Amino acid sequence: MAVYTEVSFEDLERLLREYDIGTPLAFKGIAEGVENSNFYLQTDRGAFILTLYEKRVSPGDLPFYLGLMEHLARRGIDCPLPVPTRQGALSSSLNRRSCAIVTFLNGLSVRRPSALHCTNAGAALARLHQAGEGFALTRANALGPAGWKPLAEACIAHADSVEDGLATLVGEQLGAITAAWPALPNGVIHADLFPDNVLFMREEVSGVIDFYFACNDMFAYDLAVMLNSWCFEMDGSYNLTKGMALIQGYRAVRPLSQDEIAAMPVLMRGAALRFLLTRLFDLVHHDPNALVMPKDPKEYSKKLRFHMKVKDAREYGFE
Amino acid sequence: MAVYTEVSFEDLERLLREYDIGTPLAFKGIAEGVENSNFYLQTDRGAFILTLYEKRVSPGDLPFYLGLMEHLARRGIDCPLPVPTRQGALSSSLNRRSCAIVTFLNGLSVRRPSALHCTNAGAALARLHQAGEGFALTRANALGPAGWKPLAEACIAHADSVEDGLATLVGEQLGAITAAWPALPNGVIHADLFPDNVLFMREEVSGVIDFYFACNDMFAYDLAVMLNSWCFEMDGSYNLTKGMALIQGYRAVRPLSQDEIAAMPVLMRGAALRFLLTRLFDLVHHDPNALVMPKDPKEYSKKLRFHMKVKDAREYGFE
Repeated sequence: MAVYTEVSFEDLERLLREYDIGTPLAFKGIAEGVENSNFYLQTDRGAFILTLYEKRVSPGDLPFYLGLMEHLARRGIDCPLPVPTRQGALSSSLNRRSCAIVTFLNGLSVRRPSALHCTNAGAALARLHQAGEGFALTRANALGPAGWKPLAEACIAHADSVEDGLATLVGEQLGAITAAWPALPNGVIHADLFPDNVLFMREEVSGVIDFYFACNDMFAYDLAVMLNSWCFEMDGSYNLTKGMALIQGYRAVRPLSQDEIAAMPVLMRGAALRFLLTRLFDLVHHDPNALVMPKDPKEYSKKLRFHMKVKDAREYGFE
Repeated sequence: MAVYTEVSFEDLERLLREYDIGTPLAFKGIAEGVENSNFYLQTDRGAFILTLYEKRVSPGDLPFYLGLMEHLARRGIDCPLPVPTRQGALSSSLNRRSCAIVTFLNGLSVRRPSALHCTNAGAALARLHQAGEGFALTRANALGPAGWKPLAEACIAHADSVEDGLATLVGEQLGAITAAWPALPNGVIHADLFPDNVLFMREEVSGVIDFYFACNDMFAYDLAVMLNSWCFEMDGSYNLTKGMALIQGYRAVRPLSQDEIAAMPVLMRGAALRFLLTRLFDLVHHDPNALVMPKDPKEYSKKLRFHMKVKDAREYGFE
């Protein structure tokens, strides 16, 4: 989390001529989100985030991400609202990068969510799933089963140097999970709703951010991503109380079918494998000059091994 | 510029119990300043910066830095005002680091200052020199002549790999500048007033920030640091118009003696050598896993070589 591309006052002034959002009062690079450069921008009309999209976000996907945020915000979801240029475009360019300005949301993310945080975040995910309905654009999940194989091939040779037996685990699970992958109700999902991407005021959700992995996929998979990232303790144990709380929060807004519940064990393994693979890839291909420390893939191999012992969705807190 | 130490919501809540500054509404790591971790903090009572001091700032120097900001702010200088804890302390600690909360200042720094920016920034430096009078604490300049020799010894062996002939340049100039180093009117100086450390609203100075090199030294040396960092163009040429503008802005507030003016050529060389040495040191000792890209020492060897040809302060724009 760092600022990759500098933006000078002069760059900012030039960019703001394209927008009708007032005079800048403050402008600071902030450490946030995936590998983009983000800036806090305050003008006499409000607070905004300026994002410069670095290599991980393909410019071709921007209409989907920005259009989705606009769609969701107009349907009452507390997410950043892209600010259009005077010409009506949702994005522009600066210093040879695509960029966008979105509204700034108040609130703070929690590192160790309580059960109440989990309930409220689960409900926020379900509301997001419902509000995504009717969004005109679609985007395939590049990090779904079809994307796992090439990812694995690009780093499997180094897997055992990260953790003994990791190459075998990845190879076997990739085949098994892909073969058992279900087809369930789907629509627009966030696909990365980790605790850092949910803002709270006290215990209430005040915002959902970072839509740069959003795509069309199964709703229940999105729930599996959340259970993986919200309900494990630092020591690797699954906190059933938090799991039940998150699931209950979700189901109170959007009911789950018996098929969705029955598929949870394989969805949990798939979600764990997805983050295991991207973290392994990032670690193996880590540029020592890069500004970001790679996250530990072993956190997710541990979760994957946990899920492999699960026989029934009830073990996660589904009733 | 990055965030080195993470601060969770829970850490922040714990810290804010020590302060009487309201309820947090937003909290973001920001990329700013020397090697500290900085966070933008908004509460229902105002906007603040939380700084966690990393290795470069010695905890023993904090009373000087924070006390100075308080002293200057109370004398009308637009600088961050440290917020005391309920117990009246200007600093606290968080995640095994000393930390402080200061008021947030509006304004934006410029990368390519105009002559008018230079005039106004020069005047701000002179006001700062005057306002420092009467501050009770003192701190020696660790990066003055006495500090150059150990710095040079710690990196001179690698100097020629950075630039051909750099070891000879540093060795000769270190001796020559130290021998010719003057004794002139002194007091509290900023010692690092680069363009990133001055905030503007339109062309007016709205704030001076980053006091973590402040110390007691010659006022004219502080002016030399500014001329070095504000008045050279990207191509290495000295912009006499900007030099004259900055000097004029300074002298309109605090007159310079003939001794101070006559000493400018050696002060300019000393200021250039100081930044050349710290940049060289940082480059040579750069940890490839560090979050910050080392700045280019060659920018300052070029400036030093320029100053070596200067015979008279008039060449910088002094009349």
